[in-house]
Amino acid sequence: MDDLVVRSADVFKEKQGIDLQTGHQVLRIDRENMTLSGEAFRVAYDKLLIATGASAVKPELPGFDLPGVLTLKSLSDGRRIKDFIRARKVSKAVIIGMGYIALEMGEALLARDIQVEMVKPRPTLLPWMNPELAAVIRDELEKHGVGLHPGNSIQRIEGRKGRLQVICDNQVLEAQMVLVAAGVKPNSDLAARAGLELGPAGSIAVDDSLQTSDKNIYAAGDCADAYHVVTGGKTWIPLALRANRAGWAVADNVVGREVRLPGVAGTAVFKVLDLQVARTGLSIAEAERFGFRPAEAVIKSRSRAHAHPGNSAIWVQMVGDIPTGRLLGAQLVGREGAAHRVNAVAVALHRQMTVEAFSQCDLAYAPPFGPVWDPLLTAANQLLKKL
Amino acid sequence: MDDLVVRSADVFKEKQGIDLQTGHQVLRIDRENMTLSGEAFRVAYDKLLIATGASAVKPELPGFDLPGVLTLKSLSDGRRIKDFIRARKVSKAVIIGMGYIALEMGEALLARDIQVEMVKPRPTLLPWMNPELAAVIRDELEKHGVGLHPGNSIQRIEGRKGRLQVICDNQVLEAQMVLVAAGVKPNSDLAARAGLELGPAGSIAVDDSLQTSDKNIYAAGDCADAYHVVTGGKTWIPLALRANRAGWAVADNVVGREVRLPGVAGTAVFKVLDLQVARTGLSIAEAERFGFRPAEAVIKSRSRAHAHPGNSAIWVQMVGDIPTGRLLGAQLVGREGAAHRVNAVAVALHRQMTVEAFSQCDLAYAPPFGPVWDPLLTAANQLLKKL
Repeated sequence: MDDLVVRSADVFKEKQGIDLQTGHQVLRIDRENMTLSGEAFRVAYDKLLIATGASAVKPELPGFDLPGVLTLKSLSDGRRIKDFIRARKVSKAVIIGMGYIALEMGEALLARDIQVEMVKPRPTLLPWMNPELAAVIRDELEKHGVGLHPGNSIQRIEGRKGRLQVICDNQVLEAQMVLVAAGVKPNSDLAARAGLELGPAGSIAVDDSLQTSDKNIYAAGDCADAYHVVTGGKTWIPLALRANRAGWAVADNVVGREVRLPGVAGTAVFKVLDLQVARTGLSIAEAERFGFRPAEAVIKSRSRAHAHPGNSAIWVQMVGDIPTGRLLGAQLVGREGAAHRVNAVAVALHRQMTVEAFSQCDLAYAPPFGPVWDPLLTAANQLLKKL
Repeated sequence: MDDLVVRSADVFKEKQGIDLQTGHQVLRIDRENMTLSGEAFRVAYDKLLIATGASAVKPELPGFDLPGVLTLKSLSDGRRIKDFIRARKVSKAVIIGMGYIALEMGEALLARDIQVEMVKPRPTLLPWMNPELAAVIRDELEKHGVGLHPGNSIQRIEGRKGRLQVICDNQVLEAQMVLVAAGVKPNSDLAARAGLELGPAGSIAVDDSLQTSDKNIYAAGDCADAYHVVTGGKTWIPLALRANRAGWAVADNVVGREVRLPGVAGTAVFKVLDLQVARTGLSIAEAERFGFRPAEAVIKSRSRAHAHPGNSAIWVQMVGDIPTGRLLGAQLVGREGAAHRVNAVAVALHRQMTVEAFSQCDLAYAPPFGPVWDPLLTAANQLLKKL
């Protein structure tokens, strides 16, 4: 686990000469006097960076504070989960939620021979995903013995004799451990109390130079919002690359080397058992919400050339805007070749490319890596017929 | 092998109603009278498509016509090679050439426990490739026991007692079979005799609607040239996607549905044993030849996140233009993740993106598929320092 620590506190303190004061909770930002304060300390700033991250959401329901009801956000959460599994010899777990973290946790638990049930209130597995692609993921989970219970509101968790019962509207799920992976929320309370402008989902609003509504205060990481390169509007998609990039950009801007970040395309990828799942840009529903008139194409192609050994299926959904012909997004699912393929679409989104222009791109072909017409091109060609 | 036939002659004749006349060599195009003729036949045309493909180059040197000296271009060539290996119990082969086909053939022979020596006149393994990346491929080949002999001019091949000797300037290589993979040339003789304009490497020159210098004659496939989206000039890069795409475009144009193809980015990918090798755009030397003032960055990154099991090295070379900051090309080598990553760069090249704009793209990240900063972004960030 120590390998996962990218940089320890010592490095900041000793090698980088940063006055790192851990164990100090900032309770107040005094913007007028440009100071921070907490219990028994006060610090002045010229420029301030808020990088408070996000927290796992834990529903305010009875029993979510029972031992064995755990969340995963930090490394110490991970250690706590591992310790609990070992100490209690966990053989069955319930996961509340079905997002990236829930699915990745599910896989990790299966790898330890722990039986997994997943439950959530909303009726669909991955609501942003095209149903045909989502069904592939559902089948993969079920093939590995994961019990999926969407459309189940959770009322409470009860503990009896070392077992936990997740009491839902329609059923009771029993386990030794419950993982709550019901999403994250930005840690923006401090910023909100200081009167800084907030963005989507209560994240801290920043411009393309990561400045908040106070020009001496920057925000970066999972606590801050971003521009979406497809919609031009604000979005909150807390992922590692944006967080990292924003941190570097703030450092540059604070020292006067002006950097502006165009924003995010909503690119994300994750692994579910033997499947790669990737998306970028807008889903059909998101496109409609942002005023586009979207059409989509869904194709099933192959990961390798016709008759090539090791071939497997790959699904691509692609979304375009009918009036303008613009490419708006794509989703991919497959055993191989889905994760990195999505990047070609992400680049196209950054350049507001049309589906037609994308369909003419010179993508790589060799029999071990795809058909002559890359699945992305096949999807674009099919989508063109609907635009 | 039959699985590799995408469409048999019967389908053209019976299902598609095409008057397919095999066994007829066209010897002359009479452009004035719009007819084709050969021995004992003459056919009139309104529109003509020349899709004569390319042929394997066989040097005009003594002994290249000996039995056991073979080329690989068509399916029947492949059958001939397989039959020869089986009949003669081939245990050792020499491959002349070190390009894509030579490397893929080398791998196929190794898989049949045939010892492989590769020889060619030019001094470097893949002359278009950055030396650091080429060295990775060389090491991979040598690790698998392939003997590499670049910088060896071949004088002749001699046959003695069922053994073949490839006589080079500095050494003699012995084998039971010699594969000649010394490149391909466009089959443009017929077009040239008809006075059609030729493009790079003697390919048939076509415009973006695949018309030759005669507006009633189209050319498509490995016999025809293409625009290069980076240089804006003509190029001849005979690969499957462009050939396929051009065929469809000609069909559309002939029936009056106007299609224009922007061209190729020079994207190519191949597998060498356990390595994926990909490129798109211009090498440093090509960039210089086309009047750019290029800089390159070469980085070594990882195929998965820090500390993720199954991690392997991935190398990226990226080329940019110093005066304009434009992205000009990239090359990748790695055990995983190189093949599909190249497409993101290909799309950027189609849009004349700058290295800076590319470095800001929202590429996918998850630990099983790469580091937070995708190797392409790391390469772009390093290249930016040189622009």
